[in-house]
Amino acid sequence: MTANKPKVVILGAGYAGMMTTKRLTQKFGTEEVEITLVNKHNYHYQTTWLHEVAAGTIEPNRSRIMISDVIDTKRVNLVHDTVVEIKKDEQRVVLENDELEYDYLVIALGFEKATFGIPGMEENAFSIESFDKSRLICEHIEYQFSRYKNEEGNDHLLTIVVGGAGFTGIEFVGELAERVPELCKKYDIDKRNVRIINIEAAPSILPGFDEELADYARKSLEFRDVEFKLGTMIKECKADRVIVGDDEEEIKTGTIVWTGGVQANSIVGNSGFELTKGRVTVDSDLRAPGHENIFILGDCSWVMDEENGRPYPPTAQLAMQEADTCANNIAALLYGGQLEDFVFDHKGTVASLGGKHAMGTVFDDKKLYGVTAKAMKNVIDDRYLFLLGGPRLVLRKGKFRPF
Amino acid sequence: MTANKPKVVILGAGYAGMMTTKRLTQKFGTEEVEITLVNKHNYHYQTTWLHEVAAGTIEPNRSRIMISDVIDTKRVNLVHDTVVEIKKDEQRVVLENDELEYDYLVIALGFEKATFGIPGMEENAFSIESFDKSRLICEHIEYQFSRYKNEEGNDHLLTIVVGGAGFTGIEFVGELAERVPELCKKYDIDKRNVRIINIEAAPSILPGFDEELADYARKSLEFRDVEFKLGTMIKECKADRVIVGDDEEEIKTGTIVWTGGVQANSIVGNSGFELTKGRVTVDSDLRAPGHENIFILGDCSWVMDEENGRPYPPTAQLAMQEADTCANNIAALLYGGQLEDFVFDHKGTVASLGGKHAMGTVFDDKKLYGVTAKAMKNVIDDRYLFLLGGPRLVLRKGKFRPF
Repeated sequence: MTANKPKVVILGAGYAGMMTTKRLTQKFGTEEVEITLVNKHNYHYQTTWLHEVAAGTIEPNRSRIMISDVIDTKRVNLVHDTVVEIKKDEQRVVLENDELEYDYLVIALGFEKATFGIPGMEENAFSIESFDKSRLICEHIEYQFSRYKNEEGNDHLLTIVVGGAGFTGIEFVGELAERVPELCKKYDIDKRNVRIINIEAAPSILPGFDEELADYARKSLEFRDVEFKLGTMIKECKADRVIVGDDEEEIKTGTIVWTGGVQANSIVGNSGFELTKGRVTVDSDLRAPGHENIFILGDCSWVMDEENGRPYPPTAQLAMQEADTCANNIAALLYGGQLEDFVFDHKGTVASLGGKHAMGTVFDDKKLYGVTAKAMKNVIDDRYLFLLGGPRLVLRKGKFRPF
Repeated sequence: MTANKPKVVILGAGYAGMMTTKRLTQKFGTEEVEITLVNKHNYHYQTTWLHEVAAGTIEPNRSRIMISDVIDTKRVNLVHDTVVEIKKDEQRVVLENDELEYDYLVIALGFEKATFGIPGMEENAFSIESFDKSRLICEHIEYQFSRYKNEEGNDHLLTIVVGGAGFTGIEFVGELAERVPELCKKYDIDKRNVRIINIEAAPSILPGFDEELADYARKSLEFRDVEFKLGTMIKECKADRVIVGDDEEEIKTGTIVWTGGVQANSIVGNSGFELTKGRVTVDSDLRAPGHENIFILGDCSWVMDEENGRPYPPTAQLAMQEADTCANNIAALLYGGQLEDFVFDHKGTVASLGGKHAMGTVFDDKKLYGVTAKAMKNVIDDRYLFLLGGPRLVLRKGKFRPF
């Protein structure tokens, strides 16, 4: 490679970062640009499958992919390092063990837990935030079950509190409902001693989602013994209990998982980008306001939906579509031409509720329930694998194997 | 059954209790005696396999057997309850939920941890003492590995300290040496960060065992990165460290397992039987001194070896042979005749060292090493299953399947 080639640096190998890298390698020849992908781990993980890792309903390694298995390392410099700071005025990125210069920067560093200042939440609650942290939740829950028969007066070890009834919270309790009977069988525990409690400040689960579908989800989960405390705030979180609601009810528990809020990776705010509700509101071409050569994608940014003046809900689907626009716009910057505005093509949303249970919408808001929805969920999961690594990756890691 | 039948009550379904029950059902017809077997759990576990459960190298359920699968419940009353006290002057046994009268009592309640007053050992160390406690060790170790990548400055989470280099301690570190590479692979951990440290007050491992074999075992384990601190006392045990040796070295650790001492189940001493070094020294016919109708077997008693004036080392092999003598002597008491003295027929001792590794002696002190010893160990394990449940049980739970 020559020193004169423009340098594109992508930070983070999540959905947005992986797909942008992939698109850039498809769009440019070897001699046109120097592409560098920086990631903390040498693997990519499927964030939308982490609730299954956390519940223990999937073999953890199925949710991760070696980056070098799907990104052409002859075309892309893979840097296995942790981002410390983005020095945007100097066009440099500081890593733990190195520094990088860039001409074009793609920030796709993902989310982190937002606890809204709830006392004790940061210290005492787990979050479904990374591969390692999700696996920790799985091991923690199993450890509580294994402790149960060895200690006196410890029924609370079998109580699992999940804060937040958004997508992740609901999908997670769905997987837990499947996992708990297995754990009970393994540890000779009466299932009636186990409690899965979902606590949500809003008056219903899946706020903003179709009411009929949300209602279906709630009933499906209640039928499998998930308890809901809706319209209930978590006031405080201690090592072995949460304090909830206006009457300050104490719920003793062995495991607290917070899914109630996320925000952009704190590196973004710490590097001087202005945040609105925890994320950067990007321009319609996905660039950071005032920065011609910096794109911010995925869970680090808000992209406004011009139709209703509200940001698109951040999902994997959104992140992947942003990657296409980002790659096109980098090409436009390099070779001249009009930058395109991002428009989201909503293909539907399906929530898995554990086992064979699921619900959601596809295409023109057609509603799906049960096994049909579940099959569609698997198709959606596989579509990403197909885009990323072709049929070979679907075969290796896919959930739905039609052959 | 008639009320006049003599009542034989067996406490504990370990090796001694199970085999005694089995022998009694073989020896007596339905109308001759009323046999009752009391056990805390509805399953029997193989104590000699628990180190494998604790290390996570065996599917836990392979080490336990439903009692009703091998004991004829038409012949034996199975009482699933916990013994609280033996009122020997009243010939009654107090259970948590019931009371039993007996004419003949067999106490086979097994061992519990003896910590010799080492400060903090009781509270902070695990022990390979029961099925549930062994599984807890397995889950605890895995939990430490899963925590490792999620917390800063926590290398000690990967250190496992095992106190005691007797049979259980050595077999356990052998299994750990096999398990650790699997855990490292699963959790993306460099094996060099893990330490397995065995600490023993005596100057060599397996005190009392053949020196050449003990030396072989130590080298085999050291070759697989087990560290030994021999001639070293554990002075104190805290939640996250042990303090050892005269120089009071501190070793930070995530897991402490104590295998350095056992004693009779404390119910025995609490019920007024006189203890010597934690156990009852029984008469040569296995009866408690001064009690014509009470036998004490297995890890609750010492049986003297008349040849050398020392007690036989308590092993599963010893417990099973005691069961034969006990059953014969109960028959002699019922129908008259001479009670027989117990004589131990030492068939050999093989220690498993993890994976394909093992060593020991068989028959006339022939020494075995490596895979030959391991095969013999499996034969020994299977022999017990055969005695207990015939070929069907060997097929279901056996380790060595020649067909």
